[in-house]
Amino acid sequence: MARTFKVVQFGIGPIGQSCLRTILSKGPHIDLVGVIDIDPEKVGKDVAEILELDNPTGITVSSDAEFVLTATKPDVVVHTTSSFLARMYDQLILCARHGASVVSSTEELSWPYDRHPEIAEELDRVAKENGVTILGTGVNPGYAMDALALMATGVCNTVHSITVNREVDAGLRRFPLQQKVGAGISKQEFADKKATGMFGHIGLVESIRLIAAGLEWNIDRIEEHLDPVISSKHVVTPFLTVHEGDVAGIHHHAYGYDGDERLLTLDLKMFVGAEDPRDAVMVDGDPPMDLVVKGGIFGDTATVATLINGIPQVFDAAPGLKTVKDVPLVRAFGTR
Amino acid sequence: MARTFKVVQFGIGPIGQSCLRTILSKGPHIDLVGVIDIDPEKVGKDVAEILELDNPTGITVSSDAEFVLTATKPDVVVHTTSSFLARMYDQLILCARHGASVVSSTEELSWPYDRHPEIAEELDRVAKENGVTILGTGVNPGYAMDALALMATGVCNTVHSITVNREVDAGLRRFPLQQKVGAGISKQEFADKKATGMFGHIGLVESIRLIAAGLEWNIDRIEEHLDPVISSKHVVTPFLTVHEGDVAGIHHHAYGYDGDERLLTLDLKMFVGAEDPRDAVMVDGDPPMDLVVKGGIFGDTATVATLINGIPQVFDAAPGLKTVKDVPLVRAFGTR
Repeated sequence: MARTFKVVQFGIGPIGQSCLRTILSKGPHIDLVGVIDIDPEKVGKDVAEILELDNPTGITVSSDAEFVLTATKPDVVVHTTSSFLARMYDQLILCARHGASVVSSTEELSWPYDRHPEIAEELDRVAKENGVTILGTGVNPGYAMDALALMATGVCNTVHSITVNREVDAGLRRFPLQQKVGAGISKQEFADKKATGMFGHIGLVESIRLIAAGLEWNIDRIEEHLDPVISSKHVVTPFLTVHEGDVAGIHHHAYGYDGDERLLTLDLKMFVGAEDPRDAVMVDGDPPMDLVVKGGIFGDTATVATLINGIPQVFDAAPGLKTVKDVPLVRAFGTR
Repeated sequence: MARTFKVVQFGIGPIGQSCLRTILSKGPHIDLVGVIDIDPEKVGKDVAEILELDNPTGITVSSDAEFVLTATKPDVVVHTTSSFLARMYDQLILCARHGASVVSSTEELSWPYDRHPEIAEELDRVAKENGVTILGTGVNPGYAMDALALMATGVCNTVHSITVNREVDAGLRRFPLQQKVGAGISKQEFADKKATGMFGHIGLVESIRLIAAGLEWNIDRIEEHLDPVISSKHVVTPFLTVHEGDVAGIHHHAYGYDGDERLLTLDLKMFVGAEDPRDAVMVDGDPPMDLVVKGGIFGDTATVATLINGIPQVFDAAPGLKTVKDVPLVRAFGTR
């Protein structure tokens, strides 16, 4: 009954390192056979050195993905290198050609069909040719603002509209996340960052597309807004200070319309000093659903969990490119 | 993109009739092609007469399942005849042999492998031989106290134990449900009913087995308790009266152990006058999850929804006997 999956970790930035720790903690269920990263500071080192563990693991970080995949023949690759598909889809192709299924944190992969239809088609084709499965997942996108919303509608006969609210206390999260949401910067700096088009959460559009596809709804227009949350108080985190009147974080919200009808509302606030962190899904339907995760889903660890818990899912799924709506409901794996 | 499923309704007691109403409301998505029931009061009547609709549907209730299945060749049968598998699994076999997948409300079918391993094996074999899928689902078992709990663990790296609380205000539910939980009877009557072994909720053991299987946990002992909820007040429902000191409903609870370790706690209260109806899942893990459906999932309509929403799922799934942990996450179907 119990299975052991041979796993390669591809990308060991902060999330990838957390994945490694979790992988190593799931001894009988997962066998870590290789680690890939291009950072010269990490290449050639034993994983234990990177993670500051007492005992060497015998697994050395390599920048040669082809070599690692050929030598180790993993069942599944846990992939955490980039948010953007265009930058790294060749990495996914490489894994597939080596017969490895992939669980990836790439936000754009959670629903690749609209932004990158050609890439999605190629990934699906190559995955099928090689009998493997490729899945993009994570806590958001991939769970909190899409899969959980879909799951909530499972008990509804009618659904008129869905509202998802995620409020995250960034003050409790890792430093990169606090930076990512702009905690402590001025309003002008926020405006400048926003103007680059590379600021804010990645995934609201993907989540809207995922929900719509799951419900077979037509969405012909998506509106997306990014505003600062201005701090009404002085907040000190272990990493930075936010003064009253400065930016505490982001308020990123998106709406999906069919004609004039607003069907989907996704509202994400990630800021330092949030007083009511939570994940909430409200389904206006029959019966209605008012679902809340009190305190919210803690993103740093939850992101890792969705990836690691996806290992048996991609291994068992039919070949091809999949999204979280296509695979059995995600649940914990290797916990005993 | 849009599909129309040819559906037969098998069994038109209260739940089956609600299914019929929902099926008829989903016009372009579902085509009702036949209705099966053995009740002489219903056989030969147009569905419209049973449901008290203004216009005839052209579909007549038949007691000849073989004839209906042969004549109509449904894609999927919605099956609502009995809670107990041993009484009706030949009905499922019949559907499968006619090439129809089945979504069934039979509680024991939600996890048939322990109580009825031989039946489960036969159902799986016949389903595979005929290229169809058989799924037992519902709001409970099938969603509130098992699938939702599994889904909650999807973001957890570790899970030590899970507690599920479902509290239902039976006063808001249909009359049979109020009777089913013993609302208004005396303590002695409750004891007498309990002694028959045919009283209380059916499915807690199935839900425990489902969660354990989903997490690949070993459960070697299940404890089940059935107690009355004694009313502390005088409550009048549209159907009956509960006096102070009488039975207001049931408190049915079950525990799953691995050795001495209690891993799963399922606590169900269904009674008239419940003041805090809710569905709650607490996962003791990392990260922890504290998920609540405020007001609870309204069972009468939700049960119907889980069945109807299962139609595309069983149609798309790989052939065989499945449980809710094996199919993609349930979501609303045919809502626009």
